[in-house]
Amino acid sequence: MMIEKQNHQGVTQKLAAFVVDAVEETIPAEAMHAAKRCLIDWLGVALGGSSHPGVDSLLQVAEAAGCRNAAPIVGRDRKTDLLNAALINGYMSHVLDYDDTNLESFVHPSSPVWPAVASLSTVVDFGGREALSAFVLGYEVENRIGRVLFRHHEQRGWHMSGMVGGFGAAAAAGKILGLDLSRMRQAFGVAATYASGLREMFGTMSKSLHPGKAAMSGLFAALLVRAGFTSSENVLEAPRGFFAVNADEADIAEVLGGIGEKYGILQNSVKPYSCGVVIHPTVDGILALRKRENIRPRDVVRIEAEVHPMVPDVTGKKEPRTGIDGKFSIYHCMAAALVDGACGPDQFSDDRVHAADILSIRKLASIKVNPGFRHAEARVTIRLKAGKSLDVHIPHASGTPENPVTDENLAGKYMSMASKVLGAEKARTLADTIWKLEEIDDFKKVIAMTSPRA
Amino acid sequence: MMIEKQNHQGVTQKLAAFVVDAVEETIPAEAMHAAKRCLIDWLGVALGGSSHPGVDSLLQVAEAAGCRNAAPIVGRDRKTDLLNAALINGYMSHVLDYDDTNLESFVHPSSPVWPAVASLSTVVDFGGREALSAFVLGYEVENRIGRVLFRHHEQRGWHMSGMVGGFGAAAAAGKILGLDLSRMRQAFGVAATYASGLREMFGTMSKSLHPGKAAMSGLFAALLVRAGFTSSENVLEAPRGFFAVNADEADIAEVLGGIGEKYGILQNSVKPYSCGVVIHPTVDGILALRKRENIRPRDVVRIEAEVHPMVPDVTGKKEPRTGIDGKFSIYHCMAAALVDGACGPDQFSDDRVHAADILSIRKLASIKVNPGFRHAEARVTIRLKAGKSLDVHIPHASGTPENPVTDENLAGKYMSMASKVLGAEKARTLADTIWKLEEIDDFKKVIAMTSPRA
Repeated sequence: MMIEKQNHQGVTQKLAAFVVDAVEETIPAEAMHAAKRCLIDWLGVALGGSSHPGVDSLLQVAEAAGCRNAAPIVGRDRKTDLLNAALINGYMSHVLDYDDTNLESFVHPSSPVWPAVASLSTVVDFGGREALSAFVLGYEVENRIGRVLFRHHEQRGWHMSGMVGGFGAAAAAGKILGLDLSRMRQAFGVAATYASGLREMFGTMSKSLHPGKAAMSGLFAALLVRAGFTSSENVLEAPRGFFAVNADEADIAEVLGGIGEKYGILQNSVKPYSCGVVIHPTVDGILALRKRENIRPRDVVRIEAEVHPMVPDVTGKKEPRTGIDGKFSIYHCMAAALVDGACGPDQFSDDRVHAADILSIRKLASIKVNPGFRHAEARVTIRLKAGKSLDVHIPHASGTPENPVTDENLAGKYMSMASKVLGAEKARTLADTIWKLEEIDDFKKVIAMTSPRA
Repeated sequence: MMIEKQNHQGVTQKLAAFVVDAVEETIPAEAMHAAKRCLIDWLGVALGGSSHPGVDSLLQVAEAAGCRNAAPIVGRDRKTDLLNAALINGYMSHVLDYDDTNLESFVHPSSPVWPAVASLSTVVDFGGREALSAFVLGYEVENRIGRVLFRHHEQRGWHMSGMVGGFGAAAAAGKILGLDLSRMRQAFGVAATYASGLREMFGTMSKSLHPGKAAMSGLFAALLVRAGFTSSENVLEAPRGFFAVNADEADIAEVLGGIGEKYGILQNSVKPYSCGVVIHPTVDGILALRKRENIRPRDVVRIEAEVHPMVPDVTGKKEPRTGIDGKFSIYHCMAAALVDGACGPDQFSDDRVHAADILSIRKLASIKVNPGFRHAEARVTIRLKAGKSLDVHIPHASGTPENPVTDENLAGKYMSMASKVLGAEKARTLADTIWKLEEIDDFKKVIAMTSPRA
């Protein structure tokens, strides 16, 4: 278990070298476009989450700690220091459970990386093109480590974004800071020794601390090694390194498979619903049947979903206590989709989780595991009073690479949240700016546009 | 593995209640005295570590992040925000590997807790008595969680102080902040989801980040839940909680064994040598033989130590690269003890680790594991050219509860470091103040005395 395997030697070094050696020209245009989509989606969910009470708590602590104005808080006319800003912007990005996902790794890739890049822009000058390419690299690093870890490890109870997001943030921040190879490796060392996050936090505000702390610790790691601090240079494969401790049976060499050829960002999933991603195909199915058959809730006697085995494990809460808890209750989501015809932020208020019309349907909802299903696959059956039974199979949930959200729909999701905070005109201007981000020579101006008073 | 066991229910609640319900009057006088010893020893090692280059890196990052003056950095005429001050003071406390240890849990108890209390004193008014009792409680919490975790977990490659120190800091800070039971439980939740720290970092500056980040995250946890942030209330025993994820076979109920009757702080070990604690009995043996027999290094042909099994695992580095690395090389420590007659900070410079006189002895040093030995037990045999063989058995290393450091020797260790930074007079005044800390009504004045210019 503690033996360093021969074929794992140099994994940290090669992954760091990929980041250090990358030049913008070699990053595919589709990846740069995908990064713009991530940025728009990130800003949408961050603006949507920016008024969450947890943000107020975090700001209150930053202020009590004596953290001064430096980096902006998205959607608020407030600033704090770079590290706390990364934490808070990361928190609000995830608190609606509406941020993007990579289904290879189950990492929410944007929430740990964009906040680190945003904070860094207040002290380092770089343009839109550099921000995009740093993000693509950060995404690549967290997703590559994440996909290996996920197979051996997620069941244990760690939350992936907390465990690997920091590597992504360190890679992106380190790239922008121009870290050399040795320092990039050591930045991964610091990120690794800060990696944490328990799934036990699901249903509380603390879940969304995980991408926030990943953003903060990755940025911290890059700044710290730049300032001469030392760490392990081989943290991924070392005998007591990241994988040995967290997933000792992992084939670490898989981290590097296809590196520089396949970019994880091209397999990014955008969430159409603000709840646990494995619930999405079921919601798709209910909404499809509801639309097709014009179902009235009072006619329903049963709703059944056939789902991937991860569903009850991660989202099996039968009686959610709060709105945030409802995001991990497939039963609530099934009921909300049927009653409201939607599964967005409005369906996850504390009130909505306890509303009589939802509860009356929730008790009719059940699930059945199908071990042969993909994560993003489901079959939904709705039985009606008249004895009629409706059925639909969703092979790929909407928002997944196989059933992608168009640029237009992505912008629509963004606008539904951004316009509430910024007003429609400023929200649209910000999105338009991002679609042509290569032309922007100062990235911090983009982040400054997220201030309601800007 | 994921099944909540009946007898574990309520462990988090009961541990939190112990802290919340404790009153100063019920804490034994010996524990309050032991806390003073911890404070003096902590300030000594922190002042001794305050000029380490890693402190400069950390200050540089805090400044780049925009963290303003608020809480003092021990031994430096600098301030930063409360959270970074806790991190930096925690770092410097551990960087000499000279801070106290509890051999039940292998936690370094002072380094994560005192910095949190020190930072908090800059924004909350409390006196010396309250500081001591909060520390005793924080110590109790980290040590109780640590001793259960240690048995099942340390071999996996985690560093105990990083994994459990945050609970201690959260308990102490939460006690001072007056958290109610529900919030104290949730502060443990936040601390748990921030717990991390890899032993792979040993020999680099990143090792000492662990107690620093524990201090920071525990303080953060207490401030955050006070500000209304939510977390798990049952993080220790929950099916995907701290123990399920990190040590799924642990008997969690042991956390509570003898609570309120036995205080861990009464079993605190003070380090007489600034290196890995399991090396200490071997160093004791060499120094004892050297003193008894007046050994000349050139007459030595072999030095052998019979040691606890943890020794080669944690401190088996044969060719340390740096001074900091030498702290985890029993071979270097054996040579240094024989050549220099000491094993303090001076023996762990980069130069001393590569010095010819040390190297010539280091290559004569060997170890042999005795599975029946206690952690703090060793037998040393030195073979001389003349064919003579000297032998000593150390049943309990100096500094352990069975062979304790006197108050006077503890103060001597403190003075050896504090007087270099503060001058002898101010250093002595500070120690005198701590010996009668119950009389001090404003704890932050004590911390202010660690400034060289105060």
